[in-house]
Amino acid sequence: MTNNSFRLIQTCPDSRARAGELITPHGRVPTPVFLPVGSQATIKTLTPEELKDIGIAIVLANTYHLYLRPGISVIEKMGGLHKFMAWDRAILTDSGGYQVFSLSSLRQVIDEGIIFRSHIDGSEHHITPESIIQFQETLGADIIMVLDECPAYGDSFEKVNKAMSRTHQWAERCQKCQKRSDQALYAIVQGGIFPQLRHQSAEYLTSLDFPGYAIGGLSLGEPKRVTLAMVEEMVALLPENKPRYLMGVGSPEDIIESVARGVDMFDSALPTRVARNGALFSWQGRHNIQNAAYSQMEEPVVPGCDCYTCRTFSASYLHHLFNCDELLAYRLATIHNLSFINNLMYKIRSAIVNGTFSSFRDNFLASYQPTDEQIRLNQKQKWLKSRTSRQ
Amino acid sequence: MTNNSFRLIQTCPDSRARAGELITPHGRVPTPVFLPVGSQATIKTLTPEELKDIGIAIVLANTYHLYLRPGISVIEKMGGLHKFMAWDRAILTDSGGYQVFSLSSLRQVIDEGIIFRSHIDGSEHHITPESIIQFQETLGADIIMVLDECPAYGDSFEKVNKAMSRTHQWAERCQKCQKRSDQALYAIVQGGIFPQLRHQSAEYLTSLDFPGYAIGGLSLGEPKRVTLAMVEEMVALLPENKPRYLMGVGSPEDIIESVARGVDMFDSALPTRVARNGALFSWQGRHNIQNAAYSQMEEPVVPGCDCYTCRTFSASYLHHLFNCDELLAYRLATIHNLSFINNLMYKIRSAIVNGTFSSFRDNFLASYQPTDEQIRLNQKQKWLKSRTSRQ
Repeated sequence: MTNNSFRLIQTCPDSRARAGELITPHGRVPTPVFLPVGSQATIKTLTPEELKDIGIAIVLANTYHLYLRPGISVIEKMGGLHKFMAWDRAILTDSGGYQVFSLSSLRQVIDEGIIFRSHIDGSEHHITPESIIQFQETLGADIIMVLDECPAYGDSFEKVNKAMSRTHQWAERCQKCQKRSDQALYAIVQGGIFPQLRHQSAEYLTSLDFPGYAIGGLSLGEPKRVTLAMVEEMVALLPENKPRYLMGVGSPEDIIESVARGVDMFDSALPTRVARNGALFSWQGRHNIQNAAYSQMEEPVVPGCDCYTCRTFSASYLHHLFNCDELLAYRLATIHNLSFINNLMYKIRSAIVNGTFSSFRDNFLASYQPTDEQIRLNQKQKWLKSRTSRQ
Repeated sequence: MTNNSFRLIQTCPDSRARAGELITPHGRVPTPVFLPVGSQATIKTLTPEELKDIGIAIVLANTYHLYLRPGISVIEKMGGLHKFMAWDRAILTDSGGYQVFSLSSLRQVIDEGIIFRSHIDGSEHHITPESIIQFQETLGADIIMVLDECPAYGDSFEKVNKAMSRTHQWAERCQKCQKRSDQALYAIVQGGIFPQLRHQSAEYLTSLDFPGYAIGGLSLGEPKRVTLAMVEEMVALLPENKPRYLMGVGSPEDIIESVARGVDMFDSALPTRVARNGALFSWQGRHNIQNAAYSQMEEPVVPGCDCYTCRTFSASYLHHLFNCDELLAYRLATIHNLSFINNLMYKIRSAIVNGTFSSFRDNFLASYQPTDEQIRLNQKQKWLKSRTSRQ
């Protein structure tokens, strides 16, 4: 076992859910785990100390964003990403493949790599699997990702097939050029919503024996049942002794359903993004703090919640801050939502370890009212369209 | 001595500077003191714990803003302003007179009070000296302010004279209708930039024997030498045993010069506002963190500074956060600037107590490069114009 590996601790007898831990140079990370998104080397509004208070053991940063700003060499000069953002626990850097395809313009994908224009200033950039690994080795995260080509939801079989083949070649090149042995390089399975391609992708990439496997190209606007069906198919094809990471999924109901299907790791901007829009999680669902019902509520938003926000302030105060567009509002809501998700992950893991996951899942889904699917899809589309200016 | 009073501790032999303390129901406040501005019951971006870590003993909130949002009755139901904002140290509420004149539209000032339209939704409101005191008694701050009429810089002698007379009548009515004995009600001296009126105002208001005196109607765009000349004239006319509060002044050089002229209390949005624009204080002056020189600076913005921001992050990281418009940027810069000002106040007070204030002042002014006056005035005008949408 190297100093960067995965240990399986317990498997649920009634589902594919599993408890484990990632062993990284910056500490152990209990799984299933949710990674807060800090694309630009900051979890929006929060300090590292607040993340630790919440109990966060690992965060995600993004190579695409950091490559454009402040530039990889700046972070190198500052002593690497951990030191730059003053975070001494684990970090995973995404390769930026997804961002190149969703944010930048004038993309040209060739076998060698990708040519794109920055979404910030229009400048032209060339990246390759080799350069992306070099960037991530310089940043120094504990877990790094291969460069992948991400087709959009709705792309044809042929297009998705071609992107998948290229992703496979790139994964192999990433693996070959990796120099640092203290970083775990995860592959990304692609194949869109085509089971045949997903099978091919899992088969090919597992043959290369990566220390971890991500499921990419989902949660891009397809119906939830399609996402979950794909996850179920994928996990059955991935090795038991390697962590499985479902990229871009972060709603409580999706997390619990994906854990039940064998996923160990999640990341999503959703909990922090909806927090800044005033949507706060509770065990019953999302609540909009801007609703007038909260204007005179002396209790915290979620009575009984032990996060800093709920321990300290009334719902009325938080409602007031949102009503006035006060910056503290976004921070207090972010603390609440990340605490909720972290607490959810803790409960999920405890239930798996104690052999009570199935009833926990049933109870959770019986009381939690998910956001209406059509509203959710509309919001997601709206967000994807507005991302360039908001990210 | 009541539980809300002022105690003079030491006077500088070479200037009018003095060290003292405010004794309030929510703790003792060493003076000279700077009050961070939390108009809407929040010091923008910060939690109460962060303010305490910085060493803040008293903050300012604003009756005008809180009357409009969330409404005085909401804060009453939530148990008063201290509980609402989770702040158990001292609070001063400004009456909102200045805000009615600078933010609202369609003002009609009659002897009875003021009729104005909200800058938020255009709704019509009537306030009187009596209602403003009642609001402030309900909010429950430790120090409250009389309602005053604030002429603009450049108004004629006649207009300023009339506003002053009305301010005097209103001060008397405020004093008469005050019911709570645990709140210190401060008068506000007006009179614009006319020494004759300032004399009349000080004379009249001191005859009413208030527990504290504010100097209002300055720092509204007039040249600094005029501000300081007015302060000098005023302080000589105010009672020795009462605190003197210069409203709206908050730049380091203005604070130190006003302390030398006998001022005990200051408030201003300047340190927190310029922080959010990337201007950080040091003993040499203000520095714009967005300057390219900071992009690769491994040291903190102000080497040697012991604030959380400088202890934790490089200037390069802060530069990056501002460059990306990240919300954490505004928070880290606010922490730095409030720490700087609080540290400045501590050093000023220690120097007064130790009899070394004159040399401290000389040394400070020799090394501190104030923002160019013309730039400052332009910025102030720009800010005053844009306030309605930004406050």
